[in-house]
Amino acid sequence: MAMSPLAPDRFPDLPEIAGVTFATVAAGVKYTGRDDVMLAMLAPGTAVAGVFTRSATRSAPVLDCQAKLGGDPSAAAAILVNSGNANAFTGKNGTNATAAVVDAVAAVTRVPAARVFTASTGVIGEPLPHDRITANLQDLSDRQSAGAIAEAARAIMTTDTFPKGASATVEIDGETVTIAGIAKGSGMIAPDMATMLVYIFTDAQIGQAELQGMVASHNAKTFNCITVDSDTSTSDTLLVAATGRSGVDVTGNAAFSAALHRVMLDLAHQVVRDGEGATKFVTVEVTGAEHDTDAHQVAMAIANSPLVKTAIAGEDANWGRIVMAVGKSGAAADHDRLSIRIGDITVAENGWRAPDYSEEAASAYMKNAELEIGVDLGLGTGTSTVWTCDLTHGYISINADYRS
Amino acid sequence: MAMSPLAPDRFPDLPEIAGVTFATVAAGVKYTGRDDVMLAMLAPGTAVAGVFTRSATRSAPVLDCQAKLGGDPSAAAAILVNSGNANAFTGKNGTNATAAVVDAVAAVTRVPAARVFTASTGVIGEPLPHDRITANLQDLSDRQSAGAIAEAARAIMTTDTFPKGASATVEIDGETVTIAGIAKGSGMIAPDMATMLVYIFTDAQIGQAELQGMVASHNAKTFNCITVDSDTSTSDTLLVAATGRSGVDVTGNAAFSAALHRVMLDLAHQVVRDGEGATKFVTVEVTGAEHDTDAHQVAMAIANSPLVKTAIAGEDANWGRIVMAVGKSGAAADHDRLSIRIGDITVAENGWRAPDYSEEAASAYMKNAELEIGVDLGLGTGTSTVWTCDLTHGYISINADYRS
Repeated sequence: MAMSPLAPDRFPDLPEIAGVTFATVAAGVKYTGRDDVMLAMLAPGTAVAGVFTRSATRSAPVLDCQAKLGGDPSAAAAILVNSGNANAFTGKNGTNATAAVVDAVAAVTRVPAARVFTASTGVIGEPLPHDRITANLQDLSDRQSAGAIAEAARAIMTTDTFPKGASATVEIDGETVTIAGIAKGSGMIAPDMATMLVYIFTDAQIGQAELQGMVASHNAKTFNCITVDSDTSTSDTLLVAATGRSGVDVTGNAAFSAALHRVMLDLAHQVVRDGEGATKFVTVEVTGAEHDTDAHQVAMAIANSPLVKTAIAGEDANWGRIVMAVGKSGAAADHDRLSIRIGDITVAENGWRAPDYSEEAASAYMKNAELEIGVDLGLGTGTSTVWTCDLTHGYISINADYRS
Repeated sequence: MAMSPLAPDRFPDLPEIAGVTFATVAAGVKYTGRDDVMLAMLAPGTAVAGVFTRSATRSAPVLDCQAKLGGDPSAAAAILVNSGNANAFTGKNGTNATAAVVDAVAAVTRVPAARVFTASTGVIGEPLPHDRITANLQDLSDRQSAGAIAEAARAIMTTDTFPKGASATVEIDGETVTIAGIAKGSGMIAPDMATMLVYIFTDAQIGQAELQGMVASHNAKTFNCITVDSDTSTSDTLLVAATGRSGVDVTGNAAFSAALHRVMLDLAHQVVRDGEGATKFVTVEVTGAEHDTDAHQVAMAIANSPLVKTAIAGEDANWGRIVMAVGKSGAAADHDRLSIRIGDITVAENGWRAPDYSEEAASAYMKNAELEIGVDLGLGTGTSTVWTCDLTHGYISINADYRS
């Protein structure tokens, strides 16, 4: 598949994180000719926080991971991810397959099974050929390297057209804390995390409960604010692992929290930039709502509307469809107070087209690859910003012609 | 635009309804070379019931119609519809334009303004050139004919590829009651009625309040159970006019209610069959939910899922996407009790692929133009049936390349 036109120039140089190593392998779970399994090892004492899909049909690995968060962090830990098969809706067989992988990782790496976190992404409903994974575990364990995070980013890809990585460093009391993360995700991307796997590592020292709170809060403003197609996966997993190896305690540290937020937002934007068939990266900013939740509802109604997204694909400043999406959102809205802008161009205000609105200027703006849509509801102080992409023939081709 | 492959062979022969006449004209509101305004006249004593979009940005004509339901039915009444311009999000100008049309209809036809119901469908946010409509009113009034309902069905079309009509007759105590209706709708079709205009006429005798209750109840199981693209219009209007000219009182009559339901369902299905880009007509039946509302939520999550709809377009029995949609719906679901069928083929049961599931049989079934998806949640007695179409390159072409 051709690389998304919205892809970054290249994969970033990610720093090594003390206490974290990686290895990848071509296990042939489904794909051939590429790595499809990655094993990350985390030093003893690593705090692991996570958020997951809220789907009622979530996969066996997700259920297993959720149960393990908050356990005793004193032992080493492992993260094992395969692409090509989601091990979702596979019944008792799926639970058994996850247990087989977890037990094998524990046996080979000598970490407790309660510290082995797994994820599977790919086709739903097919039995996971777990022996293809377990046959490679000794090799994965033997070849661990602190520098192999880029290979890990590639091994977890499914319909992604580029690997996704981001990093940040923070100076705290003269010491450096480092954060590096990878993500995969392209379709089935919607609120509640979608088919998205995200792994972020830091050498910061922080308790699990505090880290969990920080991750959940940032997740609400990053990964839960992106949508490609309004569909929500059975398998979404975001794990943040803090090894503590920098020796810097970041408990309650605003600079660390901000840096973690930046890395999460960067990865979330990369998922949208790799949205199936995407040719435009769109920021939707809603202000003036009665509450933040109303603002979010309006922003998501716009970002998920097939008619808005096809208009963007067609570079058509069809703002009537934005009015429609505001109206259908279910949030409080008064069309006589509504203002709409596209970039810096005021399109509509006080319930109608702005007096000096220029269709030519708006059409010219729509040719940009990065677009901003602003809606002010004129009712209160609630705000929300979400990110999405356009809906193109490419999305149809990928999803109608190919079983992902 | 090419006619939908799901279109009926031809427009049905609709019976005349005593007390109802029609005329249409090419007023040039936006389209050229076709009729774009229709005027229906209703005899004195006609009860008019209606349901409308729930959009917060509903159009001026919708607000005007809503206010007029339930008024004194003793005078004659009129329905005036234009296509090409929705007169939505047009501020004070829009309210004035609606008032100008209503007043002109009242003056020419000598019915009270409170009995003039209007609707506008087409582009949002453009001023309605109401003088092009009012200039034709005398002509429309002079040319009224009981037989012109087919022309009326054509005049209200926008992106529709075929006109939509349905009828029924009921024998009650040896007397015949007749129902005939027309509809338009193709895109921006979702729960809460979408860009859909529906006008149904009957010579039955029934009070407005009783008719209103019947219409609202049937609407919940017909037009509010269809979706093309999950987008909801600013302009949806369904009016049912009962002239009473048959002399048959249908108050509380189950046979009449059933016939009205049939006509509404038939028209609703025709709207889906004309869904933008549609090549498949899909029935989604959900059973075994805790409540009917949960069942409806699951059915709509499936019917609106871009991934389910693109899989259908690709004739791919990708039932993992159905599992995904069940999971994201927000309704109570237990994947170990979930069963899924495609047509008569049991795909999954008890949380996994059915033991004798044949991918070949399922793939062969998917080639049909009319498809059934069944989901049983195994939790209770709640049920819901909804109808949708597939999501194709045609939808993208229509909506990315054309301002509807």
